[in-house]
Amino acid sequence: MAMRRAATSAIRVFSSSSPSSSVSSGSSTRLLHASAESKKIVGVFYKANEYASMNPNFVGSLEGALGIRDWLESQGHQYIVTDDKEGLDSELEKHIPDLHVLITTPFHPAYVTAERIKRAKNLQLLLTAGIGSDHIDLKAAAAAGLTVAEVTGSNVVSVAEDELMRILILVRNFLPGYHQVINGEWNVAAIAYRAYDLEGKTVGTVGAGRIGKLLLQRLKPFNCNLLYHDRLKMDPELEKQTGAKFEEDLDSLLSKCDVVVINTPLTEKTRGMFDKERIAKMKKGVLIVNNARGAIMDTQAVVDACSSGQIGGYSGDVWNPQPAPKDHPWRYMPNQAMTPHISGTTIDGQLRYAAGVKDMLDRYFKGEEFPPQNYIVKEGKLASQYL
Amino acid sequence: MAMRRAATSAIRVFSSSSPSSSVSSGSSTRLLHASAESKKIVGVFYKANEYASMNPNFVGSLEGALGIRDWLESQGHQYIVTDDKEGLDSELEKHIPDLHVLITTPFHPAYVTAERIKRAKNLQLLLTAGIGSDHIDLKAAAAAGLTVAEVTGSNVVSVAEDELMRILILVRNFLPGYHQVINGEWNVAAIAYRAYDLEGKTVGTVGAGRIGKLLLQRLKPFNCNLLYHDRLKMDPELEKQTGAKFEEDLDSLLSKCDVVVINTPLTEKTRGMFDKERIAKMKKGVLIVNNARGAIMDTQAVVDACSSGQIGGYSGDVWNPQPAPKDHPWRYMPNQAMTPHISGTTIDGQLRYAAGVKDMLDRYFKGEEFPPQNYIVKEGKLASQYL
Repeated sequence: MAMRRAATSAIRVFSSSSPSSSVSSGSSTRLLHASAESKKIVGVFYKANEYASMNPNFVGSLEGALGIRDWLESQGHQYIVTDDKEGLDSELEKHIPDLHVLITTPFHPAYVTAERIKRAKNLQLLLTAGIGSDHIDLKAAAAAGLTVAEVTGSNVVSVAEDELMRILILVRNFLPGYHQVINGEWNVAAIAYRAYDLEGKTVGTVGAGRIGKLLLQRLKPFNCNLLYHDRLKMDPELEKQTGAKFEEDLDSLLSKCDVVVINTPLTEKTRGMFDKERIAKMKKGVLIVNNARGAIMDTQAVVDACSSGQIGGYSGDVWNPQPAPKDHPWRYMPNQAMTPHISGTTIDGQLRYAAGVKDMLDRYFKGEEFPPQNYIVKEGKLASQYL
Repeated sequence: MAMRRAATSAIRVFSSSSPSSSVSSGSSTRLLHASAESKKIVGVFYKANEYASMNPNFVGSLEGALGIRDWLESQGHQYIVTDDKEGLDSELEKHIPDLHVLITTPFHPAYVTAERIKRAKNLQLLLTAGIGSDHIDLKAAAAAGLTVAEVTGSNVVSVAEDELMRILILVRNFLPGYHQVINGEWNVAAIAYRAYDLEGKTVGTVGAGRIGKLLLQRLKPFNCNLLYHDRLKMDPELEKQTGAKFEEDLDSLLSKCDVVVINTPLTEKTRGMFDKERIAKMKKGVLIVNNARGAIMDTQAVVDACSSGQIGGYSGDVWNPQPAPKDHPWRYMPNQAMTPHISGTTIDGQLRYAAGVKDMLDRYFKGEEFPPQNYIVKEGKLASQYL
């Protein structure tokens, strides 16, 4: 309730200081007055180029454009897609002044800054095709009366599966063996001396939201010691089903784990959370999987700990920033098993988040509410995980 | 019973044709007369070199020597270990004429041919440190009255975990992403156009013995359609627990699967089982995981199918022969995720199979029976999976 008051007050400040904004009088958000008129919708997606034609279900790409072009245009809306998102000369920037809806993704994030929000006088709705809206300045969006929504749940299975893959890749020391194969070598010992079974190891998830819970369920038959840390204990039934034990104190969990999986959103509290000091509290040789957000880690602290052996292996698909520059040090640190940001954009995930975006646009045109769990910013209020 | 008669008859042939063998009169096997005298035991393991000192539990290496040297020598036995196993000039060959026990592994297999068995006049016992004794000419061993035993169960968890890792690596298209990272690239589309969730896919195991069952249990929470083919239906309780459906006809299973995992031993029946014709019966783009034995596949048929796209991805740790030569075509075929033979020789697996070998040696010295499931050749009879 305290937050609601704070948010309302923020909106008042914004309204009074920005008389030229499109907030209608008598409304606390721009969205509530979405009408049946033609809307300008802009989507920012990664470009597929020669891969676009290789899979008819590749809807998450620029060329696939979520598969909603015909549907949008048949209703008289304008739909522009681009992958050119950075800087004042970008294609996205051209449309900022008059777009009504901006669709972005975490995989090729268009950073929606307070400045962009200020320039986007007609903007009403920010939709994330996928999960994770930290590339948007959520406080500025709330202050501007915008609605921000994700396709909650659309790719949680995709990410949880990917995390389990990465745990196994690290525990079992897969990549050195693969390198031997392609380099014409054969040295079982050089792999085996640090290859382990997952069985019997202690695995902890920092964050046990939708993805963390799905991961714990998938870990259950591996006969590990499962731990989790979160603000709240999970449902006792699920705790019983997965056998995971609650650790109220994060550092207590970290000191026990052979494998730590990070499943928290990026917020002001979690940014840089895994710094040199916290990594030093972990077991020597700990394996870390992070498909959450790159900025939860102190970039250099991870490099240093991988080099010293304090971290025995690091795998994830999230970077700070994205795309990761050619000289990002995580590309070249020892014992990494990194990929570009991919886990949530499997073909299956794409089909689900494309359907979710279409559903929300349809509701928006009709002036209907979204599924409640999809809201990240609604009526000036941030969703609980971003507080 | 028919097999028992056949084996007995084979022993008779051997006994009569090899009067110089050490088979004692009145005994059907050499093993039964193991006495308390000093034995010469030879172990063939992969060499660890600089990795030997990096992990005190690295007992599966030449240097680790299963951690049984002091124990053996304190009882007056001679224990020789080597990694030099090929050809008539090899270290192993020098000891063939007078060794009593030969310990080998599937990871660095000493091929125990009929010729070697013939020259090994004192040989009584062949122990496999791990699982899979196809590097031994089992018929010749049976005919010679030898006992062959494995540490059954010692690394089935290790292999099953590794199989699930490989399924995920292929389904989710991990390696192209990893290559982008180390090559300074970022192209999400080039990964995503053929990255999928495992959820909802049809996964079949050819063979549902110990490893196949453990794999099915671990696959259960992934919400796949699980199929299995074996000579016999599994226990109804386990079928219910895993939800896996029995496919009596192999080709019927193959035509349905997005992912096929091979979990059969290498026998005369399974050698070359996956040839061009059988691979053609599988779904276009099928993903294959094979941690069983390389020779179950027709090597060139796999290369051709990976090149044509009939196989969408192939991952495993077994080759024909081993070590795989530098020019083995599986090293260089598209969409492979191969490693050297590693899945069963994790540190955890090593500790279990080292303990199992020690236990069997102890029983051998005392003239006691082995755990029944460990026997591969006993009293001239092959274990059922090798028939």
